[in-house]
Amino acid sequence: MSSFSTRLYSAIQEKKTPALVGLDPRLAMLPAGMIAGGEKASWEEKANGFRQFCCEVVDVVAPLVPAVKPQVAFFEQLGSAGMAALADVIHYARAKGLLVVVDGKRNDIGSTAEAYADAFLAGEQSAWHGDALTVSPYLGADSLDPFVKVCREHESGIFILVKTSNPGGGMLQDLVADGKPIYQHVADYVERIALETAVDNGAIENGAEKNGYGSIGAVVGATYPEQLVELREKMPHTWFLVPGFGSQGGTAADVAAAFDPSGQGAIINNSRGILFAYTKEPYREKFGEARWQEAVHAATCDMIEQLRAETPAGNL
Amino acid sequence: MSSFSTRLYSAIQEKKTPALVGLDPRLAMLPAGMIAGGEKASWEEKANGFRQFCCEVVDVVAPLVPAVKPQVAFFEQLGSAGMAALADVIHYARAKGLLVVVDGKRNDIGSTAEAYADAFLAGEQSAWHGDALTVSPYLGADSLDPFVKVCREHESGIFILVKTSNPGGGMLQDLVADGKPIYQHVADYVERIALETAVDNGAIENGAEKNGYGSIGAVVGATYPEQLVELREKMPHTWFLVPGFGSQGGTAADVAAAFDPSGQGAIINNSRGILFAYTKEPYREKFGEARWQEAVHAATCDMIEQLRAETPAGNL
Repeated sequence: MSSFSTRLYSAIQEKKTPALVGLDPRLAMLPAGMIAGGEKASWEEKANGFRQFCCEVVDVVAPLVPAVKPQVAFFEQLGSAGMAALADVIHYARAKGLLVVVDGKRNDIGSTAEAYADAFLAGEQSAWHGDALTVSPYLGADSLDPFVKVCREHESGIFILVKTSNPGGGMLQDLVADGKPIYQHVADYVERIALETAVDNGAIENGAEKNGYGSIGAVVGATYPEQLVELREKMPHTWFLVPGFGSQGGTAADVAAAFDPSGQGAIINNSRGILFAYTKEPYREKFGEARWQEAVHAATCDMIEQLRAETPAGNL
Repeated sequence: MSSFSTRLYSAIQEKKTPALVGLDPRLAMLPAGMIAGGEKASWEEKANGFRQFCCEVVDVVAPLVPAVKPQVAFFEQLGSAGMAALADVIHYARAKGLLVVVDGKRNDIGSTAEAYADAFLAGEQSAWHGDALTVSPYLGADSLDPFVKVCREHESGIFILVKTSNPGGGMLQDLVADGKPIYQHVADYVERIALETAVDNGAIENGAEKNGYGSIGAVVGATYPEQLVELREKMPHTWFLVPGFGSQGGTAADVAAAFDPSGQGAIINNSRGILFAYTKEPYREKFGEARWQEAVHAATCDMIEQLRAETPAGNL
């Protein structure tokens, strides 16, 4: 094993793309027949459908992208059966050579945060053995420390919410205190810890930067391109997880600023735009529902191509 | 059914205490023999131990207090087996007449937040059918709206993190923007929605206040008594969930300001101080590990007595 940062860097280098496929199995959007029992299906049947759907997506995208991002909320909606399916999907994706960023936006005060870190980030002993987890910062540094500690011990990573992609994210994040918005206060904290972990994991050695990134990352939405520019500059050792590409309106041009000149430093997420490509043109007419897997493949390739054409990811 | 606020108000009135027992089954602190298989136990065995421990605690406290607060993180640590145990514990507590505040500190952007709301707050159709859920505000109003909507539809409630009990909570929460700290910005939002739901649920009728509280509450730590005074004044229609009593250092005197003069308006949580009372004096000598349930009973009664003696809860 090597640090999460090193694994992510290598995987991006190998696949030559920073595209991240979000596994959001929305019940109402799954291809017909995916769930035995249809609308009256039990949670177990629905969870089986989620498992099958996500594993088929993994089969399609594993040769194409470095990582996937399962969204816990959709699995949690199906109770413990859904959470068992999530564990299987994570396991399956890792076995196929993908890195897994678990999108749970967890957090709590210190001794309770330890339990969340243990659930997702502690390697083989974790119930949901992800490579990384998304984490919320509202409770402050001492709620984040336990995650950082477990990441150091188990070579896993976290992405801390800094500037989110939703329209209302600014309610708190854009308030200005001590001359800068709240999201920059979070950003300063994240960059400091990212730098520490970059030194620890050998990304910076004897002052010389190798890949230069730590295992503590930031979530920065594709829907705020100006903030991406500003934060990339302020956070040179921090991986960015960039949601909002595709269905939320972010374009390849919008996310160009998330990268360093070599095309590293960011992973760009697309969930609905890939999973449910079969519901939208040009994929709907070409593949239709029956060939939804081919639509997933085509939409993933198109995203990779757009990122190559319009961002530094072309230099990978 | 009636609104969460009405149910909470009535339960406090009936039990004549605002004491809330936190169900935090910490693996390392459970009484000996609770988990078959000991240290080498499977997740299933550990989850069975959590289930048994929490249900026994519920048996002891159900006649004494209005509500319990299971902490999701500890159950999540045990994988889907743990999450199945959580569902059983919630069901058992509700069957015993307790209200259940699920402590998950969940949130995500809008359409994903809907899935979390559906998982915990949508009544019989929820996998974890709580009366209320704790929610994090960093993503802003449009991430909270789906929870509020589900609360209105299903007569459930949420407690939004405002001022948390941990030492580092101030990192973001105490930053001052537009002349007031971030936690007050959150507080203003919460009070506005709380008032709207109070009008909806009949707590305010024709301008006259009946119980006066809405179903959208706030988490305000016992460890910041001055902020409790200030927030109680600013948030007259908002229930407070007050953590930090007991093990975290908050005393009955510290939380007095959380209540309205009638002793309503707040629930005061104690987790470790009650669950693991058998590990601390005066309960250790009196009961020991073998009689841990009696220690739970005594510690709960002592907390209730302290709140009666030193806070407006004495007026219930």
